[in-house]
Amino acid sequence: MTTKSIKRFNITKVSGGAVADTSDALAIEEPLEIRLEYGEAENRTVKNVSVTMRTPGNDAELAAGFLFTEGIISSGDAVLNIEHSFISCAENKENVVVVKLNEGVIPNLNNSERNFYTSSSCGVCGKGSIDAIRTVSGFVNKKGIPNTIEAEMLFRLPDVLRYYQDAFASTGGIHASGLFNLQGELMLLREDVGRHNALDKLIGAAINQNWLPLDKHILLLSGRASFELVQKAAMAGIAIIAAVGAPSSLAVELAEEFNITLAGFLRNQRFNIYTAAHRVLLPANENTY
Amino acid sequence: MTTKSIKRFNITKVSGGAVADTSDALAIEEPLEIRLEYGEAENRTVKNVSVTMRTPGNDAELAAGFLFTEGIISSGDAVLNIEHSFISCAENKENVVVVKLNEGVIPNLNNSERNFYTSSSCGVCGKGSIDAIRTVSGFVNKKGIPNTIEAEMLFRLPDVLRYYQDAFASTGGIHASGLFNLQGELMLLREDVGRHNALDKLIGAAINQNWLPLDKHILLLSGRASFELVQKAAMAGIAIIAAVGAPSSLAVELAEEFNITLAGFLRNQRFNIYTAAHRVLLPANENTY
Repeated sequence: MTTKSIKRFNITKVSGGAVADTSDALAIEEPLEIRLEYGEAENRTVKNVSVTMRTPGNDAELAAGFLFTEGIISSGDAVLNIEHSFISCAENKENVVVVKLNEGVIPNLNNSERNFYTSSSCGVCGKGSIDAIRTVSGFVNKKGIPNTIEAEMLFRLPDVLRYYQDAFASTGGIHASGLFNLQGELMLLREDVGRHNALDKLIGAAINQNWLPLDKHILLLSGRASFELVQKAAMAGIAIIAAVGAPSSLAVELAEEFNITLAGFLRNQRFNIYTAAHRVLLPANENTY
Repeated sequence: MTTKSIKRFNITKVSGGAVADTSDALAIEEPLEIRLEYGEAENRTVKNVSVTMRTPGNDAELAAGFLFTEGIISSGDAVLNIEHSFISCAENKENVVVVKLNEGVIPNLNNSERNFYTSSSCGVCGKGSIDAIRTVSGFVNKKGIPNTIEAEMLFRLPDVLRYYQDAFASTGGIHASGLFNLQGELMLLREDVGRHNALDKLIGAAINQNWLPLDKHILLLSGRASFELVQKAAMAGIAIIAAVGAPSSLAVELAEEFNITLAGFLRNQRFNIYTAAHRVLLPANENTY
């Protein structure tokens, strides 16, 4: 990985009874729009075929591999060249690649709408992705919710989740989302092979219970915290997210923007707080390790 | 999880020098098509808004949660009811849900093409998903490739991957795909926050090297093996896949159909072989544990 694949964030590290302010390196997550240019010289068509949330680096390979494995092109010979296109955006990121096909090559776009993702005018940067959520969420302005939780309580949640996760024990290959109240009691648990599906099921169940916004709850994710998962949590008004795995850079930036408390690497009596640490009541002996 | 979330498969279990034929329970992965019905009584529109690969169960919650978290509906009050629609298919699975909105509710479909997935006539079942790949892949008929690998060699691959995965050490939150030759030497390594992106980058790099089909290589996945990952590997002609994590049911079924050797849970001198075990030279003392 290159340095542009990693970003450092200031964090609060909690380990047992010890607390320290430090920093943590996270994998960068940014959207990449793949555009396809094809047709005869005098009549070239440019089409957006995909936007994927990816770690920057090897973007041309990603574009070529995506087009091939999705069946849009049938070999590398179809490609004339692949270049970044700079978008006019405050962040000026390399988040668009244009794949130019050789003349005479006709891409197979029949299946290409499978992962189609419409991009807004300046949607293809981290800021654009965050702004897009703000426009559709009904709960995003609820800042400064005073609910707090004990660090000690947070330590226990993964064990509770695992205890109730009967499918995990028998297959070992399934993601879980758990919804806890501020006292650490499990209110809902949903599982799926897809992490976003597990969370959609959980939020769907909460909607059925008429519980939204979920600003007096903790969301526990059995794996990593990606941008899409924090987005879904933000839509439901969740104020505290804890993940057993690592968050991505864009997940942290979205949580920061929406004043969501985001904790990661919650396991073995440890966790890191990435954003809105004020909601976590920390052990008394700060900065002792 | 209910019983319809899990499926048992016959496997060959390798642990150190011991080999046993047994069975393993895997999480079921199947496509779910979410259809939206809306408009006035005399003029209802039905639209397919998403196909997601999910574990069956809680499908109505998944549909409601998806529509809400994607901003297509703004509250649960928008929904009249949610029901499965049976598709005329040999498998007759409950893989379509229809969400009927109340009259007067206008869904916000501006962003809904984000995860749009066109379904073929009978594409929304495991069999249909597999058939769809057969129609676009150029390598799927290459059956009976005689290349074999040593079980002992497979044990070493995760350590090799981890050694070269410098980003993993510093972030702990990134997926890797590694391409090895049949002697266990690492040829390519790519990383990404998205597991499908890591594999697309790897296959894109292999296309640049003009290496396809990759029938004399082993693909190592740092996490689980989902349907989409096996699909991408099949497109590149990969004959052997090893995953550190669990495969899904549909990943196994696809590998079986394409005669791909699929090993899962490759860690701590152990792995399970789910399909095409003939390519793995097993330790001599079979069935001793």
